[in-house]
Amino acid sequence: MAAPFPVVFVGADSGSWRIQRCDAVVGEGLPQAARLNVLPTREPLLPANPAFILRGSTGHVRYVEQTEKLDLAKVTPPLARPEASCGALIPIRKSDAWWELPQDQRRAILEQRSRHISLGLAYLPAVARRLYHARELGEPFDFLTWFEYAPEHASAFEELVAALRASEEWRYVEREVDLRLVRDD
Amino acid sequence: MAAPFPVVFVGADSGSWRIQRCDAVVGEGLPQAARLNVLPTREPLLPANPAFILRGSTGHVRYVEQTEKLDLAKVTPPLARPEASCGALIPIRKSDAWWELPQDQRRAILEQRSRHISLGLAYLPAVARRLYHARELGEPFDFLTWFEYAPEHASAFEELVAALRASEEWRYVEREVDLRLVRDD
Repeated sequence: MAAPFPVVFVGADSGSWRIQRCDAVVGEGLPQAARLNVLPTREPLLPANPAFILRGSTGHVRYVEQTEKLDLAKVTPPLARPEASCGALIPIRKSDAWWELPQDQRRAILEQRSRHISLGLAYLPAVARRLYHARELGEPFDFLTWFEYAPEHASAFEELVAALRASEEWRYVEREVDLRLVRDD
Repeated sequence: MAAPFPVVFVGADSGSWRIQRCDAVVGEGLPQAARLNVLPTREPLLPANPAFILRGSTGHVRYVEQTEKLDLAKVTPPLARPEASCGALIPIRKSDAWWELPQDQRRAILEQRSRHISLGLAYLPAVARRLYHARELGEPFDFLTWFEYAPEHASAFEELVAALRASEEWRYVEREVDLRLVRDD
């Protein structure tokens, strides 16, 4: 794993990804934009008239344990596969109650009781993922979760999202926006 | 726990804390400065001619478990106690080998084998502490560790620092600077 690297997601009139939908799942949504830019730098040159700007950083794993890490490594694909023309950006903020929990209780909710890691694993390599952390950057969301998949795996992706939203972990989600994207440039 | 809050440490000619020593413990040191400012905001008004600027953010606990959290809460003092006129700022960066470890292996090294949490607990309430995270902010250090104690606990603080530096966890420290401070304004 290299050093953490930054990302800036910008909703604007131009950008590599067309925004198909932008739904407020829990709490406040995001301003409407036609397209999404994914800019892999901390201080990017911004497009004109951005509708929203979301900043994040990759980081080390917070809950994944040794055997899970090995299992994930076997099936995790790279991003930007040519066939993966569908994307999703799902920014999430969790409640103070979540962040006040000690590490062992968060792990128990996230994996033992919500199967978050196992669920994601079951949809690999079809659904490629990347997690960006944003909470300690002073951003409005804690995480910017990113997904890429081929059109034929769209229903599998809906299953994954539905399973996570039905989990105990998701009771701690106090803001969630769901942007669905198509890469067409 | 409130939302994470930022800090900017600035070495300069003015500031609330006088810098007594600034030692490079592992790797590169920091430029010399007479005094240290502790500015609790993300974009502060900076003093003139800063020698160095280090940014961080508080965050949630990464390794502390339920019983440890309760034990810590019982004896953790606030910062800025009038008698705690001694301070230390110890910025630390760990190696890629550390960050590549899964959560359970980092926890095992940090607490089961290095007793990091228990050691800190043993010196509470004498040595007040605050941990700022900096890695995902793109900073040169991963952590900015902050300590405050009264002059009569100076030797206890040296014991604590020596015990941590002798631990297995510290083999993963690839840069460490140790600034000792006196609050005299």
